[in-house]
Amino acid sequence: MGRWQPDARGRLMQAAFALYGERGFEQTTVAEIAERAGLTERTFFRHFADKREVLFAGAQELQELLVSTVADAPASLAPIDVAAAGLGAIGAFIGEGGDLARQRQAIIASSVELQERELIKLASLAAALADALRRRGVEDPAASLTAEAGIAVFKVAFERYVAEGNQLELPRLIRESLGELPRLLEPSLPASR
Amino acid sequence: MGRWQPDARGRLMQAAFALYGERGFEQTTVAEIAERAGLTERTFFRHFADKREVLFAGAQELQELLVSTVADAPASLAPIDVAAAGLGAIGAFIGEGGDLARQRQAIIASSVELQERELIKLASLAAALADALRRRGVEDPAASLTAEAGIAVFKVAFERYVAEGNQLELPRLIRESLGELPRLLEPSLPASR
Repeated sequence: MGRWQPDARGRLMQAAFALYGERGFEQTTVAEIAERAGLTERTFFRHFADKREVLFAGAQELQELLVSTVADAPASLAPIDVAAAGLGAIGAFIGEGGDLARQRQAIIASSVELQERELIKLASLAAALADALRRRGVEDPAASLTAEAGIAVFKVAFERYVAEGNQLELPRLIRESLGELPRLLEPSLPASR
Repeated sequence: MGRWQPDARGRLMQAAFALYGERGFEQTTVAEIAERAGLTERTFFRHFADKREVLFAGAQELQELLVSTVADAPASLAPIDVAAAGLGAIGAFIGEGGDLARQRQAIIASSVELQERELIKLASLAAALADALRRRGVEDPAASLTAEAGIAVFKVAFERYVAEGNQLELPRLIRESLGELPRLLEPSLPASR
């Protein structure tokens, strides 16, 4: 680690989340985050490009977990089961962070800029999932449809997870929503083609 | 109309699309768009907030069409049929623009900023669709799930529509993808709960 503080990254994240919660995202400066963490601004910028990136620091890790879970799933699994395994893995990962996901969600909901960034990360997850399915030999449009629908389910399950009063774990909410969707999509009318 | 040019808006859009295609979005200025349309910059800014908004001018209209189609659908229809009617209506509307959707897509694909904006508009469509379903008495999470999955289908169908060599109409691609999705989502394994 040399002159680097041990766990500087973790301390900076903790300080940033606390300050965003107390003062608001817009009103918090990098200098204040560094001060709260007992570190310098220079150290902050070694770990994060800007104060926004603190909130999205886990996105790359999440995407890699999704992709590797899909790649490692048994060859016998149907695409949707593979997608479900990947989404379950990222759901469990997010769940391990305890209340962090809820804190983060409240901060993101406070800023249009952050909401936009979150949408981009979700679109990037969907594209990565579709790519990972294609590498397993799933053809388009099945790969894109499965991936986009999977991320749609993840989005709804995540909203339920961070909602006031929810007691259910994220992987369970993902499974429930995934299980409910086929029934919701069955048309009551014969398709007119 | 007073001193306003008749169809100034249409001429500005046409000029902007042509210039974005020829020179690129980043390289085109409002002054150039106005000049090409034979109008003043001031007239441009009466119709559009900035050069980006020319590309998203139809978004509000599209959303209103989706919401009104959902609101006006027969009470007997299942939520997915209602969503399908709404998506079919906006698909037909986009299809009426002829090659405009493909031109627009190529411009949007050239800029990260525009891609981000497009994602935001899609998220806004999904939220409007979920709201419209809730107003019909559909409860959550069914309303959100149906809406997010519907927009996921729309996204994939639209990508197929603008793809090189596609000959199929957008409403048909939406129906095909909507019809295919339930089968893709049926798990091959019993859910482990």
